[in-house]
Amino acid sequence: MEPLSEQNPLFKKIRRASSHGGLTDDGCAIAEGLHLVEEAIAAGCEVKAILLTQPDGRFPGAKLVSEKSFRSIAGTETPQGVLALVKPHESSMEAILRGQALAVVLDGIQDPGNAGSILRAAEAFGATGAVFLKGSVNPYNPKCIRASAGSIFRLPVVVQEDLSALAGIALYAAMPRTEKSIDQADFAKPCAVVIGSEGRGVRASIAARADGLRIPTSNVESLNAAVAAGVLFYEARRQRDAAQKQGSSGTRAAQ
Amino acid sequence: MEPLSEQNPLFKKIRRASSHGGLTDDGCAIAEGLHLVEEAIAAGCEVKAILLTQPDGRFPGAKLVSEKSFRSIAGTETPQGVLALVKPHESSMEAILRGQALAVVLDGIQDPGNAGSILRAAEAFGATGAVFLKGSVNPYNPKCIRASAGSIFRLPVVVQEDLSALAGIALYAAMPRTEKSIDQADFAKPCAVVIGSEGRGVRASIAARADGLRIPTSNVESLNAAVAAGVLFYEARRQRDAAQKQGSSGTRAAQ
Repeated sequence: MEPLSEQNPLFKKIRRASSHGGLTDDGCAIAEGLHLVEEAIAAGCEVKAILLTQPDGRFPGAKLVSEKSFRSIAGTETPQGVLALVKPHESSMEAILRGQALAVVLDGIQDPGNAGSILRAAEAFGATGAVFLKGSVNPYNPKCIRASAGSIFRLPVVVQEDLSALAGIALYAAMPRTEKSIDQADFAKPCAVVIGSEGRGVRASIAARADGLRIPTSNVESLNAAVAAGVLFYEARRQRDAAQKQGSSGTRAAQ
Repeated sequence: MEPLSEQNPLFKKIRRASSHGGLTDDGCAIAEGLHLVEEAIAAGCEVKAILLTQPDGRFPGAKLVSEKSFRSIAGTETPQGVLALVKPHESSMEAILRGQALAVVLDGIQDPGNAGSILRAAEAFGATGAVFLKGSVNPYNPKCIRASAGSIFRLPVVVQEDLSALAGIALYAAMPRTEKSIDQADFAKPCAVVIGSEGRGVRASIAARADGLRIPTSNVESLNAAVAAGVLFYEARRQRDAAQKQGSSGTRAAQ
């Protein structure tokens, strides 16, 4: 089989999405590397195309590309030579707000590696979805997809102008210089947690109406944004598990 | 003042350290960016030289370099034009093991950003030092220094061949597929916590003798290494704070 030319419309489409860091013109996400391709398939995402540098029996309909062409669209330094174009599931605010909501809000997080790690941690600790506020990286930036380790294919993710869609639930914001500590929050109720960028923090208009939460640290002023999100969501999960245990052994179960 | 030539021995020394990702031949670390330079100075590290692209009254003895030369040694995409060569404090295993030790052990962490974020989180939650096992990134890789946000200038950091120096304290290891959860560990006692690389995990010889700990996650198999370290050290800090409170209000204080 002839390798795909770089002039081929499919290749050009992938290269455009890869270089501008988002979905393709027809709404497909780039999953690079065997693990991510498998995660996207396992999550039930429709696979539109697969590109390989070497034929692989597991992907019979795949297109071949030269190693050089592949490197020009790959985001990794040592590409594995497998990449898929996949259609992410439709996400909605309704899905994020369903039940005992726990939403993560990314406010100005521009590093795609941090954004992806936040999605991964959020899913790990039971978040119901993620809201990327304008000014944050594109959630479908291939580096964000990779850092999410597949979470982006399972967790509802939406981009919003502001927080108006979250008006019905409690709003917490990670803020280093505030009194209330994360263990004093009530994460058992439906809530959203805003993570600001490391340079600028949570924007003033959000900080003014959110319940600020401090992660109890010493010596350092703040944490890496993904680490901060991980700690916050771990604490949220801890509280929810404790509330559930209490509930199943007594009063709450009776309600 | 004439900008420094790229042939100048000082410049060449910095470029060598920057490209091989470690200390200079004479044991100096590269602190790039105003914030890091200030953190190194505040930590009491001796400043051997400062390079600037623009004169700055705060740094009277600094050497000027052209923007082009600066970019060739900078690790950031949009350099701030300030960089210092600083002498890190001497670190020792004795310092790490002092008192209620809480050591972080990096086992094969190769990403400098992750390694630095781990140092930052470790210091934030009261770790007494970090051990980089051979096979991990050089702790003085400029990207690791930057991701540590200055923690590397305050926290004792040593490189070791193996764990023999830690023989006297409890050994925990973060392992996704194990029974014991991190909240079942006893972090109040002196201990070390091993963080493995994401690809390979904790090496078998360490896993065999360490007490494996699982971070209670769902859906995802593992977390980003720095996020995992952050959650582990937050839990350790939580337990130590609780033990101290209990101690000061009763039984333990009497011992």
